[in-house]
Amino acid sequence: MQFVEASLTGYRLKVSESGDDVETVASVGELETLRRIFPRLPRADAALLGPGDDAAIVAAPDGRFVVTTDMMIQGPDFRLAWSLPHELGWKAAASNLADVAAMGARPTALVVAIAAPLDTPVSVLEGIADGLRDACAAMAPGAGVVGGDLSTSSALTLAVTAFGDLEGRAAVLRSGARVGDEVAVAGRLGLAGAGVSLLYRDGSRDSDADGAREPDARLARAVRRDHPALVQAQVAPTSPISLGIVAALAGATAMLDVSDGLVLDASRIAAASGVTIAFSAELIEAEAETLRGIDAGVGRRAREFVLAGGEDHALLATFPAGAVPEGFRVIGSVAAAGEMPVTIGGEAYLHSGGWDPYADWDGNSG
Amino acid sequence: MQFVEASLTGYRLKVSESGDDVETVASVGELETLRRIFPRLPRADAALLGPGDDAAIVAAPDGRFVVTTDMMIQGPDFRLAWSLPHELGWKAAASNLADVAAMGARPTALVVAIAAPLDTPVSVLEGIADGLRDACAAMAPGAGVVGGDLSTSSALTLAVTAFGDLEGRAAVLRSGARVGDEVAVAGRLGLAGAGVSLLYRDGSRDSDADGAREPDARLARAVRRDHPALVQAQVAPTSPISLGIVAALAGATAMLDVSDGLVLDASRIAAASGVTIAFSAELIEAEAETLRGIDAGVGRRAREFVLAGGEDHALLATFPAGAVPEGFRVIGSVAAAGEMPVTIGGEAYLHSGGWDPYADWDGNSG
Repeated sequence: MQFVEASLTGYRLKVSESGDDVETVASVGELETLRRIFPRLPRADAALLGPGDDAAIVAAPDGRFVVTTDMMIQGPDFRLAWSLPHELGWKAAASNLADVAAMGARPTALVVAIAAPLDTPVSVLEGIADGLRDACAAMAPGAGVVGGDLSTSSALTLAVTAFGDLEGRAAVLRSGARVGDEVAVAGRLGLAGAGVSLLYRDGSRDSDADGAREPDARLARAVRRDHPALVQAQVAPTSPISLGIVAALAGATAMLDVSDGLVLDASRIAAASGVTIAFSAELIEAEAETLRGIDAGVGRRAREFVLAGGEDHALLATFPAGAVPEGFRVIGSVAAAGEMPVTIGGEAYLHSGGWDPYADWDGNSG
Repeated sequence: MQFVEASLTGYRLKVSESGDDVETVASVGELETLRRIFPRLPRADAALLGPGDDAAIVAAPDGRFVVTTDMMIQGPDFRLAWSLPHELGWKAAASNLADVAAMGARPTALVVAIAAPLDTPVSVLEGIADGLRDACAAMAPGAGVVGGDLSTSSALTLAVTAFGDLEGRAAVLRSGARVGDEVAVAGRLGLAGAGVSLLYRDGSRDSDADGAREPDARLARAVRRDHPALVQAQVAPTSPISLGIVAALAGATAMLDVSDGLVLDASRIAAASGVTIAFSAELIEAEAETLRGIDAGVGRRAREFVLAGGEDHALLATFPAGAVPEGFRVIGSVAAAGEMPVTIGGEAYLHSGGWDPYADWDGNSG
C-alpha cells in the first residue's frame, strides 16, 4: 500500500476536538495531508515508478539491493519538546542512510511510514517531509522517497526503510577485520551523546507524578542556545554518508555506523571478526580533546561521551595497514582476539550499559 | 539498523511491574527476545545477506525491485481482543504480499519493524513471528524476513516493507485498463468486511466512558465460533498471491489488491486509466450469493459487503477480452469514461464512505 491509498478512514470520521484553528491531520483528512506532504518529499533518481500504485519500483542495476529498516517513536526515541519536526525527518533519514553507507553502498531510495495522533498539526508532517528532503540533499544527493504509508497512533511513529546500490562492489560487513588492520573513524564522536545527556539534565523539569523528568520545550531551547553543536548532533545528526563508498573503494575490511556507542559498536566488529579492537589511549584522548574544543561544557566527561555516546552515526571501519583513506582518522588497530573484545591503551573499558541522565556535567562552563 | 542491534536500552532498564511470572519483553530484554523470535522467522531464498549486519542484501536479478510498505497499529488497525498474535503476523505479511502481487511480481523478502509496549509478553512476539512465517509459507513460498527492528511504543505497531521480483516482466499498473477489457477478480470479496462489522457489533460491549464500544475477547470468541470464515478473513486474510504473476503472464492491463472495498479500489483503476469500470449487476449478485453461501448471517447486507468491504486482499484486474486466466472470475467490463468512475448494472453506486458498525445485521440466522 502506498501513500495514495485511503487507509485512514479514521482521519475522515473524526475531527479535531481542540476547538482552535490549527489544521490537524484529523481536520484536513488523509488525502489533503498527503497533498501537502507530497511536493516536499525528495525524488529518487533510482525510482522507476514512484508513489501512486500498489508498490514502487526501484532500479537495482547490479542485481542486488541493500536494505535496512529503523523505527523512531515518540517517547523512547525522541521528544517533541526537544526536536523540531524538520529534525525528526532529518534524523529518520540520517540513521537509515548511515546503515546503508556502512555496507559500502550508495543510498538510492527510502520508503517512509508515518503514524501520527489525530490531533497532530499538518505542519508537523510537512516539517518531517522537509527534513527527509533536506537530509537526502545534504547527505545522499539523488536518494529520495519512493513510497510510504500514513496511519494514526497514540505515539508519533516514523518507520523508515532505506535502500542502497553496491555498484558491483562486495559489501563491507562487520566480519572482515583482520589482525594488523588499522581502525579508523569518519564523522563525529560523542556530540550526540553529550547532547542528549544535557537535554535530560537541563532540558527537563521534575515531574510531580513519579519522580521522572519531564521534557520541557522552553528549557530545551535554552540548552540549544548554549550548546548548539551538541543538541544539533543529537536531534539532527550529520553522518558522513559518502565516506562509506570511499571506505569500500579503499579496501575497508569491516565497517559499521556508530549508533550505540564506539566501544559497544566496536565490540560487534570484534565479535563478528573474531578479533580484538585495540584503541589507542592517546588517539581516544585526542578525540575527547576535539569534543572539548567543540563544547568545553563536556569537561571531564568528554572521554566517556567519545567511548559510550551513541547516535552520532559516525562510520567505524578497519583497513589494511596504510590503506586508510582521506576523511577517516586512525584511532587504533586490530589485535588477535584476547580476553576483552575492545581495549583502550591495552586496558579494558567497562561499558556502563546506558546513560545516567543525572550524572555529573560541567555544563556551567560551556 | 538490523535486528541484532541493541537499540532498545529501555528494555533493559525497566522490568515488568505486573508482579506475575509472565515473561515480557521488558523482563527478558531485547537480546533474549530476539533470540526467541529469530528461529521462527521465515528464511528468504533471495537473501544474499540476512539479519546481523547494518543492512541486509537481497537479490534483484532483473535489475529492479518492487517495494511497498504498510503499518498495522493497535487500535485503528487491529484489536488484541479480536486477533491472536499469530493472526497479526499473518495479516501484516498478507497485506504487504498482496501489494507486491498486485504489481505482477513475485514476493521475495520482507523487513519487519515491531514496536511493543514494555509489558508485552514475549509469547506475543513469538506468535507474530510464527504468523509471518506461516503466511509466507502458505502464500509466497520462498519469501522470508531479511531484517528488522525491535523497539517500544505505547501501541503495538508492526511496520512491514515487502519486496518483489518482476522477473523481467513489465509491472501491471493501475493505469493500463482499456475500453473493452474484461474486469475480473481473484480471491474473496466481502468476508473480511462482514467479519469486522460483526466483531464491532457482537464482539464489543458498551463502554461506560464515552458511549464507545469496547472490544471484548470473550464475546469475540463467540463471534469466531459462530462465523469462523468471516472472522478468519478479517483477522488473517488469505490473498491469492500467486495469481498476481498468473495475471501478469496472461496480459493483465491493470491490477490492484482490494484493500479498501471493491468499488473504491475499482474507482482508482478508473481514475488512473481514464475509463469507467462497469460491473455486471448479475455477476455482483452472484458474488453476494457466494458470500451468503459461506455465511448466511450476512443476509441482505451481502451485496454491500461485496461492494464496500475491504481487507480481503482479493486481486482486481482488467484483461483483454478473452484473456482472463483460470483463477479469476469475470465481474464486469471496462467502458469509456462516463459520469461515474464505477457503475453496477449501469447505475452509480454511492459508496457510504465507511462502516456503520451498528447497522443491521442478520447475525441471528448465521
